[in-house]
Amino acid sequence: MTRTAITNATIVTVDANDSVITNGTIVIDGHVISEVLPAGASPASAVDHTIDAGGGIVMPGLINAHTHLAMTAFRGFADDVDLQDFLGKLFPAEAKIMSDRHVRVGVRAAFAEAMLSGCTSALDMYWYADASLEEATKAGFRLQTGPIFIGSNGPDNIPFEQRLTNAKASTPHSWIMAHGTYTMDPEQLAEVGELAATEGARFHIHASENAGEVADVQGRYGRTPVELLDDKGLLRSGTVLAHAVVLSDAEIARLAETQTAVAHCPSSNMKLASGFCRVPELLAAGVTVGLGTDGPSSSNDLDMLAAMRVAALIHKGNRLDPTVLPAAAILRMATMGSAAALGIDQLVGSIEVGKNADLVRLDPSSPSLTPVYDPISTIVYAASRADVVDVWIDGVAVVQNRTCTTLNMDAVLRDLRNEGLAITG
Amino acid sequence: MTRTAITNATIVTVDANDSVITNGTIVIDGHVISEVLPAGASPASAVDHTIDAGGGIVMPGLINAHTHLAMTAFRGFADDVDLQDFLGKLFPAEAKIMSDRHVRVGVRAAFAEAMLSGCTSALDMYWYADASLEEATKAGFRLQTGPIFIGSNGPDNIPFEQRLTNAKASTPHSWIMAHGTYTMDPEQLAEVGELAATEGARFHIHASENAGEVADVQGRYGRTPVELLDDKGLLRSGTVLAHAVVLSDAEIARLAETQTAVAHCPSSNMKLASGFCRVPELLAAGVTVGLGTDGPSSSNDLDMLAAMRVAALIHKGNRLDPTVLPAAAILRMATMGSAAALGIDQLVGSIEVGKNADLVRLDPSSPSLTPVYDPISTIVYAASRADVVDVWIDGVAVVQNRTCTTLNMDAVLRDLRNEGLAITG
Repeated sequence: MTRTAITNATIVTVDANDSVITNGTIVIDGHVISEVLPAGASPASAVDHTIDAGGGIVMPGLINAHTHLAMTAFRGFADDVDLQDFLGKLFPAEAKIMSDRHVRVGVRAAFAEAMLSGCTSALDMYWYADASLEEATKAGFRLQTGPIFIGSNGPDNIPFEQRLTNAKASTPHSWIMAHGTYTMDPEQLAEVGELAATEGARFHIHASENAGEVADVQGRYGRTPVELLDDKGLLRSGTVLAHAVVLSDAEIARLAETQTAVAHCPSSNMKLASGFCRVPELLAAGVTVGLGTDGPSSSNDLDMLAAMRVAALIHKGNRLDPTVLPAAAILRMATMGSAAALGIDQLVGSIEVGKNADLVRLDPSSPSLTPVYDPISTIVYAASRADVVDVWIDGVAVVQNRTCTTLNMDAVLRDLRNEGLAITG
Repeated sequence: MTRTAITNATIVTVDANDSVITNGTIVIDGHVISEVLPAGASPASAVDHTIDAGGGIVMPGLINAHTHLAMTAFRGFADDVDLQDFLGKLFPAEAKIMSDRHVRVGVRAAFAEAMLSGCTSALDMYWYADASLEEATKAGFRLQTGPIFIGSNGPDNIPFEQRLTNAKASTPHSWIMAHGTYTMDPEQLAEVGELAATEGARFHIHASENAGEVADVQGRYGRTPVELLDDKGLLRSGTVLAHAVVLSDAEIARLAETQTAVAHCPSSNMKLASGFCRVPELLAAGVTVGLGTDGPSSSNDLDMLAAMRVAALIHKGNRLDPTVLPAAAILRMATMGSAAALGIDQLVGSIEVGKNADLVRLDPSSPSLTPVYDPISTIVYAASRADVVDVWIDGVAVVQNRTCTTLNMDAVLRDLRNEGLAITG
């Protein structure tokens, strides 16, 4: 088992106390963090590799709590338009191009983009989830996903009942996903919920993204999206609601009570003008909140450092309160918060002995990160993907010196460009 | 005179029509853009150097319309606190460290940070402006600044009258600056305005940054900051108001009428919880609006690509309208808008024949910039400083292959770190 020591690091642990260790050392034993040492302490035994962090920040890998990774090919396809125009452009284009191969091309580029910007794991909702899982294994990316359901036939042209049959034939799934309460009827939602319960699978769905969606669902069923999910027993530990922008106080209390998690997607919520998720109230109520980018057709990238900055800024401006959601709360949301939402917080999300080694090393020589008074503040308010030098997932150096080691980038980008041409061609 | 051709470029010109030229060529003759050629056309005569842009984006250098560059040493010094706590921490620390040398250390790091992130020019407000101008010349950065006035003695401990005498002894200045209507009395403001008028200098001041400032000034003088400036004849062509968040309809009309410009600083306005500048109304009224980062103690960096993204996102979320301030309006704000605010729009701000060559080349192999449907949208919603490869200012390649050519970065960063230690020590 290879032993690697990262020395001379400013270790931002995101442990229970938000501990920061100056001039510390992290020892990676195979895929696990075996030691986290203060200044002056040495590894218990010899190591095979030593990486001098040069005093720079080493932090937990960022975890994207809601995205549609394969949509890299649709990045910037429909910007600066309202939701109707957006979907009106997107859905026919998706249907035209959709295939197992299209998804593989899209996610390969997504894994590279994510890893190069310090993201080590994601909860992904998209078609051909099995293809994405296969590609993730090849790329060394920690992917959480599963089959997705929608009322219509979807861009892959599979009727709902067939999709259900297919999913039942390919159990077990760690995740079962539904598109939204506005794109399937309540009976379909109940069937999907039953499948998830039978399998003991976690559950992911878009819910209450904007006022229009809530009004639509209320108009049709006399219940809000969150109320409808509650009716079907789908508010529970293991459920992650994407967006959850439009929430009443009672709904927030109910999410807390049922241990339902929320994936906050600030850039998407701003760009699509959905509104401001009530993150301070959610956290105050004890709801688990993770941070996501949404898909690259919405937001328009997979940059979790950018998402953290947007999250840290917008709520202060919206509340006219500069103390709301301080830097440590934002970093926690993008690491332990997302990990808890995804149910992988025992494995990753912080730099602690025994956890899997999902780590990000930032450039100690970036002018934008100099000087450092509070490393957590530096990460949230000043770091960009330009500063990501090395990334480890499960102890594997998937990014070394700003280069992705697990993918052939020339081929990945050529395929993605061709996919863009095929979409518009 | 050296002739350089940048070939195979997606040229985002920011000309009057927002023209984008695919597979184009830009010829730089000395410090001037001498040709902007469509696909297939060749330079009029031989060139000394050819740079293949690989199909990637070449755009005008970004122009920071409001900042305090030397405050790099205070980056992250007082985050997540309200304005009173912020100033309460900052002012004594500034007074303790302030010197000509401190400012030189701070701006050298700032020029490097700015240039590495695609910013080629800035309107800077800070102490020891002459030192900053000298350092800018050495670094090859296009700096706009001038002496600043405040009612108190300031961190450099110079009484107002002495400052006025000093400024009069060192004319001419292209800019005269005042801190704000809440930090000097109206008579002082009038004196500074008279100095600017006598010199034919442009004028820069913080104004109406938040509701507290407006209430304070109204309480003391029965006039808002903008009304007070109007009284003193300081609303005029050549005046740039930083922030201008809290504006009435009548004030917006008056800014338009007087050709007073605004420097919009979205990240600072969010982080300090100042509120949402009424940019759509300002632009609709015909007010010149530039984009700024504010100082690194407020926002916390000099990254104009990040500022563009924040500006493009927050107003859509705040207005619940995804069509507000589309990507082209945001890019224009950060280039021609800032250039017009600074009075340098005849020189720079777009890629057009005869303009000075302030250019930025982005990485054609960035996964985050692939594919490209609309290059302007790509810049605003997906580009980061990670994608800035080459930067030219006045025809000089100040950044080549992500490395600053005009500054000794080891020395710049060492000095900046020491300055940080001196501030806290």
